[in-house]
Amino acid sequence: MANNSNNDIPKTCKAGVVVNEGPDFKLAVEDVPVPEPGPDDVLIKLNATGICYSDIHYMLNDLPIPPMSTFGVKSPGHEGAGVVVKIGSNVKNWKVGDRAGIKPAYDACFNCELCWTGKETYCDDSPQIGLQYPGSYQQYLLSPARYTQRIPEGVDDFSAGPIMCSGSTIYCSLKESGLKPGDWAVFPGAGGGVGHMGVQLAKAMGMRVVGVDGGDDKKDLCMKLGCEAFVDFTKVKDVAEEVVKICDGKGAHGVFVTATSAAAYSSAPMMCRIGGRIMCVGLPPAGTAFAGADPLLMVGKNLHVIGTKVGSLYDTTKALEFAARGQLKPIYEVFPLAKMPEAVDKLRSGKVAGRLVVDFDS
Amino acid sequence: MANNSNNDIPKTCKAGVVVNEGPDFKLAVEDVPVPEPGPDDVLIKLNATGICYSDIHYMLNDLPIPPMSTFGVKSPGHEGAGVVVKIGSNVKNWKVGDRAGIKPAYDACFNCELCWTGKETYCDDSPQIGLQYPGSYQQYLLSPARYTQRIPEGVDDFSAGPIMCSGSTIYCSLKESGLKPGDWAVFPGAGGGVGHMGVQLAKAMGMRVVGVDGGDDKKDLCMKLGCEAFVDFTKVKDVAEEVVKICDGKGAHGVFVTATSAAAYSSAPMMCRIGGRIMCVGLPPAGTAFAGADPLLMVGKNLHVIGTKVGSLYDTTKALEFAARGQLKPIYEVFPLAKMPEAVDKLRSGKVAGRLVVDFDS
Amino acid sequence: MANNSNNDIPKTCKAGVVVNEGPDFKLAVEDVPVPEPGPDDVLIKLNATGICYSDIHYMLNDLPIPPMSTFGVKSPGHEGAGVVVKIGSNVKNWKVGDRAGIKPAYDACFNCELCWTGKETYCDDSPQIGLQYPGSYQQYLLSPARYTQRIPEGVDDFSAGPIMCSGSTIYCSLKESGLKPGDWAVFPGAGGGVGHMGVQLAKAMGMRVVGVDGGDDKKDLCMKLGCEAFVDFTKVKDVAEEVVKICDGKGAHGVFVTATSAAAYSSAPMMCRIGGRIMCVGLPPAGTAFAGADPLLMVGKNLHVIGTKVGSLYDTTKALEFAARGQLKPIYEVFPLAKMPEAVDKLRSGKVAGRLVVDFDS
Amino acid sequence: MANNSNNDIPKTCKAGVVVNEGPDFKLAVEDVPVPEPGPDDVLIKLNATGICYSDIHYMLNDLPIPPMSTFGVKSPGHEGAGVVVKIGSNVKNWKVGDRAGIKPAYDACFNCELCWTGKETYCDDSPQIGLQYPGSYQQYLLSPARYTQRIPEGVDDFSAGPIMCSGSTIYCSLKESGLKPGDWAVFPGAGGGVGHMGVQLAKAMGMRVVGVDGGDDKKDLCMKLGCEAFVDFTKVKDVAEEVVKICDGKGAHGVFVTATSAAAYSSAPMMCRIGGRIMCVGLPPAGTAFAGADPLLMVGKNLHVIGTKVGSLYDTTKALEFAARGQLKPIYEVFPLAKMPEAVDKLRSGKVAGRLVVDFDS
Repeated sequence: MANNSNNDIPKTCKAGVVVNEGPDFKLAVEDVPVPEPGPDDVLIKLNATGICYSDIHYMLNDLPIPPMSTFGVKSPGHEGAGVVVKIGSNVKNWKVGDRAGIKPAYDACFNCELCWTGKETYCDDSPQIGLQYPGSYQQYLLSPARYTQRIPEGVDDFSAGPIMCSGSTIYCSLKESGLKPGDWAVFPGAGGGVGHMGVQLAKAMGMRVVGVDGGDDKKDLCMKLGCEAFVDFTKVKDVAEEVVKICDGKGAHGVFVTATSAAAYSSAPMMCRIGGRIMCVGLPPAGTAFAGADPLLMVGKNLHVIGTKVGSLYDTTKALEFAARGQLKPIYEVFPLAKMPEAVDKLRSGKVAGRLVVDFDS
Repeated sequence: MANNSNNDIPKTCKAGVVVNEGPDFKLAVEDVPVPEPGPDDVLIKLNATGICYSDIHYMLNDLPIPPMSTFGVKSPGHEGAGVVVKIGSNVKNWKVGDRAGIKPAYDACFNCELCWTGKETYCDDSPQIGLQYPGSYQQYLLSPARYTQRIPEGVDDFSAGPIMCSGSTIYCSLKESGLKPGDWAVFPGAGGGVGHMGVQLAKAMGMRVVGVDGGDDKKDLCMKLGCEAFVDFTKVKDVAEEVVKICDGKGAHGVFVTATSAAAYSSAPMMCRIGGRIMCVGLPPAGTAFAGADPLLMVGKNLHVIGTKVGSLYDTTKALEFAARGQLKPIYEVFPLAKMPEAVDKLRSGKVAGRLVVDFDS
Repeated sequence: MANNSNNDIPKTCKAGVVVNEGPDFKLAVEDVPVPEPGPDDVLIKLNATGICYSDIHYMLNDLPIPPMSTFGVKSPGHEGAGVVVKIGSNVKNWKVGDRAGIKPAYDACFNCELCWTGKETYCDDSPQIGLQYPGSYQQYLLSPARYTQRIPEGVDDFSAGPIMCSGSTIYCSLKESGLKPGDWAVFPGAGGGVGHMGVQLAKAMGMRVVGVDGGDDKKDLCMKLGCEAFVDFTKVKDVAEEVVKICDGKGAHGVFVTATSAAAYSSAPMMCRIGGRIMCVGLPPAGTAFAGADPLLMVGKNLHVIGTKVGSLYDTTKALEFAARGQLKPIYEVFPLAKMPEAVDKLRSGKVAGRLVVDFDS
Repeated sequence: MANNSNNDIPKTCKAGVVVNEGPDFKLAVEDVPVPEPGPDDVLIKLNATGICYSDIHYMLNDLPIPPMSTFGVKSPGHEGAGVVVKIGSNVKNWKVGDRAGIKPAYDACFNCELCWTGKETYCDDSPQIGLQYPGSYQQYLLSPARYTQRIPEGVDDFSAGPIMCSGSTIYCSLKESGLKPGDWAVFPGAGGGVGHMGVQLAKAMGMRVVGVDGGDDKKDLCMKLGCEAFVDFTKVKDVAEEVVKICDGKGAHGVFVTATSAAAYSSAPMMCRIGGRIMCVGLPPAGTAFAGADPLLMVGKNLHVIGTKVGSLYDTTKALEFAARGQLKPIYEVFPLAKMPEAVDKLRSGKVAGRLVVDFDS
């Protein structure tokens, strides 16, 4: 590839790396070698990475899965946005200078039924980046060309990062819900990291959106982003009843549970009208919540309870297109590279409004 | 209507009527007046009625709903098959001599979104026959012309009865599942009243069918009706694991829970492959079972949990067409009219293989 | 019904009636008897009726169908909006004072597969109002309660009229197209009576809309209504090429042919991307146009060509809901009742921008 | 890979190669070098290849596309079945000894919307094997691992060959038609290479199948394969009328035009019931046929005309699964390798019943 140039690619780059993996971990910013792309890879220079609570889990090593160190990985992160700086010898459809991002799945086999039906994130051969492969806390990162995400004009790198994960997740949920323009879409957790993107996307899809969350700040945010009504669970006695009243007295066509509480799941069936969809997105700690209902209620109201995870390449592409048209603007706070440890601490210590993003270039 | 003749219509007819509604009810066969059709009704002379456990509930008055007596109704029953003997003055698309049946819903408004989208059984104005209107234990019965079910050539009245309720129910579930020919359909409760019709319909739809039930009789029945494999829950330690093994090691595309046990619902998620459907059909007592799963599992396996109730006119028509082509043969035991009380006692006292049907003409 | 009052209902009312049916017809405004509702009917006092070119056809008697006179009908019209003033003895879900409209189909059987699947406008027993039954040129009009259209708050009668026909037609086409938010929807005939409503609905559904029509007035209108781009067929050499260029260089996801020219149909396949939909709405004179393509093109581009007609009760309800939310505003010109003949002449003599509506109350 | 052995792989192999490409071409069987797999390839030793009329076109060079020689290709063929004998260094999910086949598309990019939505055969980067890459007339053949087709137990190589092309094509058409079990599926060209597989698949999917073709041999074949009725176009005056009569007097739910005549396309709309699908499969010479209808008919009958081409990896996998269950048995005639030229001449010179397959091992 004529425009493949090593001139500007340094030997080492900065990376946020975990030190002392486990409950007492610390994040340090260190110099690590810039990797060399294999024949089917692209090398991406990231300008931004999002900080996601999954990263904290991986560094805490508090999930029932093998830790990062098993795979020799020190940098978490799966929401990166930047530019291709080098391509492998077999790569044809990418060129140096193309904008590119990485999302939670590192790759997929494209030779199984799941991959063939747009469910490649469920593929058996779909490892996690930032867990099984070095993640987006590292500035220069490899990605298989075929599984690298294009970033369109009109979406800056700080916005693109969170869309790679939360944005694509809620796009996927909206798509699988089958809701139509004019339908009522209710978002428990509307003011959160995933919820606030769901509100915007649902609005752009022509749905009527109701936010459910707690506090006036959340209310203001939700109404600004396009909600037609807001139910404050800190003030309303029976949230489901209130939702039904708003939704023509019949209930929601779809309830998108982006909150991570058991209560959000247990109240969802009562928010629905006949034929309603309960979309499972938020993940309460294992064993603490139940999505579904008594079979009598499932049958009596023709309920559909559907779980979906992070979006596919297709979903992410679509979510980015909404952003490019100005219909999806993630809310985020930017930290310079040197303050990446501070950003991680902040997320770990408590609730954060919107998403945290690290700027590799400042 | 020239062929509308009162000559052969008696003034009174036989009916199974409840005596002493409540825990100590008895069923008696009595003479009741033959009703006169209103302008939009047809009068049907039934040849057969099925006996369903809902009938027992209504006579026991053990459900949290107003009893039959509230509506002045003495005869339960919602699975009737016979022939039109008189039509109302406005009725155009029925004629005396047409074969006709009645199903659980008495009518629907056809002027609401549910009615317009094939969900008329969920319509607010859809009363129950055999509860709010006299049911099919009464030989001469009124039915609104527009909500009367046609019975095609090739389906005898004894078979048509159970299809009105159980057959249409499982047809509806199969339809809403979205399963495709070649997919694995698993039926917990495969040998039961609803399950054994599901097995036949799924087979006729090109699916690969696995029966789950207890005992060799059930196994023999299931294999005869078209199951490719059978899992005996009285013999196998981990039913879900066995089902997954049979289904290519990946699990079922759809699990149709026709059993009425909590265990059937709780094991269903583990039987499914990624993207699998759990179809809620069987109704355990209120508050004893849960359809669904931990959100982590819902999301991790892209599960869909869907409840459907008795089929619409469309569904029942389709189920009857499968029967007319010889692909659906309900298993039933026939009782003469005089033994209707005995049939009711038998169903009330315990488990019955297949469905019980009363022959009004013997 | 307590509020059923004859006090305000006159014995006669005004109606536009055809005189000298055939090529030399004239429309006269005459007094006709106010009809009495049957047990299942409502009597509607119309405030407005649209004037549609089908009405002209019926009065000209230039279609290969039996003329109005065969059915004893003198008043055409199928786009009426007003208020219920009397209800039949069986009618439960309507009351005097409810806003109500009539649409092209007078009724349907609701006892056939087409009616059960939301296609009741194709039912064999679905006669045309304004052809087989007196139409909306008559101020007091009967309508079967179950097939009468509700009009929601927020839609005035002048707007409701055209939505009953053109609005529901294009809603139905958009629904059946399967297009999704973000998809490119192209409207040949975008500035016409049907097209200008399609543009607004597509926009409200989150699609990206391209108008195709001729002249700057049409362009201005289309851009104002929400088109992202406009192609003027009087100025552009290769309209399809231009459409493809606008639509990411790949072509439209859907082409909604609301124009009534053969050229619009023949160019549509070239406007489509792979998998594109060509939606047939506009009706060129019989034998003058072809919807479809060479099988090589159909196969090579995975094209879908789909015809739909006027919307169902469901479709019309949905279109009216968009109007109630302010997302659909038909463009119309109002004529007082006395000038109904003038309105008819104007439509007959040539092209009209938007729809013509007659105000019965002025 | 431990089991990667060159011991049994010869340096050269037999291949049918075109001599004198163009109207006077000849096919010769020659020795050609066995290719070496790249890192992402598998090397397949074919046991069988089908002979398809497309191959003849490519050798005749009578299509408006660049000839084989442009790409340095001498062997056509795109229906091959055999076994993997060597794998590239990056290949993980294939091993030596796996059964493998090749189908018309050589590869796809898996990084575009078409690839992500199961339409990878329409991908811009999906070259044709046997045209742009050496085809299955050559015994040892390279194939990208990710785009190589697995062949399941229970399908012999002679059957697998034709399923790679015709079988997957008609499976794809059936899938996209949306027809349901119990629906009427009509096949003009039912006795042909594609049609006879369609009949079997439709039957296995629970549809009611009507064959349309000419002659008693075709009739016997069709009835044996599962047709419920057969219409002989050489004997029946109005084929469409006859089809409608068979299909409940209403017409077909779907007409699968596997014939390659203009007449088959022009009569299809009249065979359909309301809402019917006309599926375009057979390809008459360019400019000689039209798929579709007058907009009046499209609209009046709610017709859907849909074109699909050869199936995707998913479609082919599904078609092979039907074969593995014994529900799809292509009819073919086997030629030994030495008689490959004779097989080509036979196909070129006229009509052939079923498919022609060459046995590389005899």
